[in-house]
Amino acid sequence: MKYYPVHSGYPPYTRVNPAIEAAFAEHGRGGVQMPPKVYVTLVGNGDFRTMPAYIPALGVAGVKVVNVHPQNRARGLPTVMALTVLIDVETGVPRAIINATGLTAMRTGAAGAVAAKYLAPRRPVTLGVIGTGRQAEALVEATAVAVAIEEIRVWSRTEKSAEAFAARYADYNAASVPIERACDCDVLTTTTPSTGPLVMAEWVREGTHINAIGADAPGKQELDPMLLVKAEVFVDDPGQAVHSGEINVPITTGLYDAGMIAGTLGEVVIGKKGRSSPDAITIFDSTGLAIQDLAIAALVVGEEEGYELPFP
Amino acid sequence: MKYYPVHSGYPPYTRVNPAIEAAFAEHGRGGVQMPPKVYVTLVGNGDFRTMPAYIPALGVAGVKVVNVHPQNRARGLPTVMALTVLIDVETGVPRAIINATGLTAMRTGAAGAVAAKYLAPRRPVTLGVIGTGRQAEALVEATAVAVAIEEIRVWSRTEKSAEAFAARYADYNAASVPIERACDCDVLTTTTPSTGPLVMAEWVREGTHINAIGADAPGKQELDPMLLVKAEVFVDDPGQAVHSGEINVPITTGLYDAGMIAGTLGEVVIGKKGRSSPDAITIFDSTGLAIQDLAIAALVVGEEEGYELPFP
Repeated sequence: MKYYPVHSGYPPYTRVNPAIEAAFAEHGRGGVQMPPKVYVTLVGNGDFRTMPAYIPALGVAGVKVVNVHPQNRARGLPTVMALTVLIDVETGVPRAIINATGLTAMRTGAAGAVAAKYLAPRRPVTLGVIGTGRQAEALVEATAVAVAIEEIRVWSRTEKSAEAFAARYADYNAASVPIERACDCDVLTTTTPSTGPLVMAEWVREGTHINAIGADAPGKQELDPMLLVKAEVFVDDPGQAVHSGEINVPITTGLYDAGMIAGTLGEVVIGKKGRSSPDAITIFDSTGLAIQDLAIAALVVGEEEGYELPFP
Repeated sequence: MKYYPVHSGYPPYTRVNPAIEAAFAEHGRGGVQMPPKVYVTLVGNGDFRTMPAYIPALGVAGVKVVNVHPQNRARGLPTVMALTVLIDVETGVPRAIINATGLTAMRTGAAGAVAAKYLAPRRPVTLGVIGTGRQAEALVEATAVAVAIEEIRVWSRTEKSAEAFAARYADYNAASVPIERACDCDVLTTTTPSTGPLVMAEWVREGTHINAIGADAPGKQELDPMLLVKAEVFVDDPGQAVHSGEINVPITTGLYDAGMIAGTLGEVVIGKKGRSSPDAITIFDSTGLAIQDLAIAALVVGEEEGYELPFP
């Protein structure tokens, strides 16, 4: 068994995006086993989630364990840290343990890039960015590999953060703008921890594709529910999205119904579903799938040097 | 973060039994979080199970990942291998990864020992042993620490295995015997992978305590359902027992009803439940709990030297 710290040497998005796309394609074909994420609440501190899965076509099986500890920022620790265990399909021997902290942001960024590849209304795109954390960076970098970016319009609750973020992506004509202006774009990416609508329906023009990434737990929400009602919503996984995706709050309040989901990203990738017209607003509701974690872990194991550990 | 291979230096049952008892006591008090085990089937090869839990009173949280690959014996590999990840409750940082292969048999043996401590009809005991694998050894060794053993009566499908097992425990007057004779005892331990009744009701005398360990997946069964009906059945966890314990097959066939469960081992440990009379037959239906894995993992981390690994 090997341990992969993955402190340097992250795989490039030119390799990550296709690996994540392949995992979604298998999901679209119904060829994966992926029980629902299991949440354990560490009352007063945070929680941890256990995400097992198996992708037979890729010969990858395993589990990601990932925490969410909001008070970690004050401690100088990441809020989210993750570990992936890969299991040999034939023998069950654990073959790798991987620090999946950085990889978690990457595999989520890659999912947004895959969604943009299939659902962006035109090329090159103007990218709107709401929220400027680590996940926003991953989305910009993954998306830039999938579709040409002409301009980035950045908004953050803290203007200083938006300006710093824009400065980092000056090559893509990035600028800090008011939120209404950031929403006026071709591909809009939301990555905040918000628990109430930030993006209003009237700010979003026809044809826009939205990557709704922030909502990944019950009670989280970034979009005006009216936007969900008029848009074509593609989820990563219906079970997870209903429980903890962008649609979870509007479903609870009765403003959205799970029957209105247009399809899954996997179905879009395999050509079974897609945007109905160039004018439709499309939304990718991402909660994060265990199969994405397996796909990126398999890449690391194929490319990186690891520590040899005795097992069994 | 540290990795503990645990190839030597297993903690002694004098320390393991009390740790497992403490975990069951917390379970009995309703003080643990333990979602149901999640099964992923590696079709044609085996399966792996993911077992997350949190014991607030002991400050331990984490996940065990364990496989079952029946064809491994022919490969010279263990059928069951396991890895436990411990998560720091306050920060979510993974603090240890532990080879839990040997520990899995030990924590199950210790659960049987705790059950015998509270439910054995007398001391010293005659121990009946059905099945002579690694799990049977763990049960004998853990039980010997909990209650004095006068004699061991061993039966295995293969007489040679029973004789070899008996020779190993000569200090306890162990002997290979016919199955009816093995069942004539004070504490009976069953640890086979059987999918049909091996132990008939008429072979078991009043007052006997049975540790039913083998059945840990749907379809597995070692006891005559008539025995369950006339006995007082204590389970480790009702949800898991109904799904995959000794009672799972009789529930499916309608010969047993979950409403007949007398209580949990945790409730027995805290004195809330117990055998109703010296003549009652009692059964401990063990499926194996994630909290047992956490309790024994915490012991290892406290006692063993591990490999230092960079994280996060």
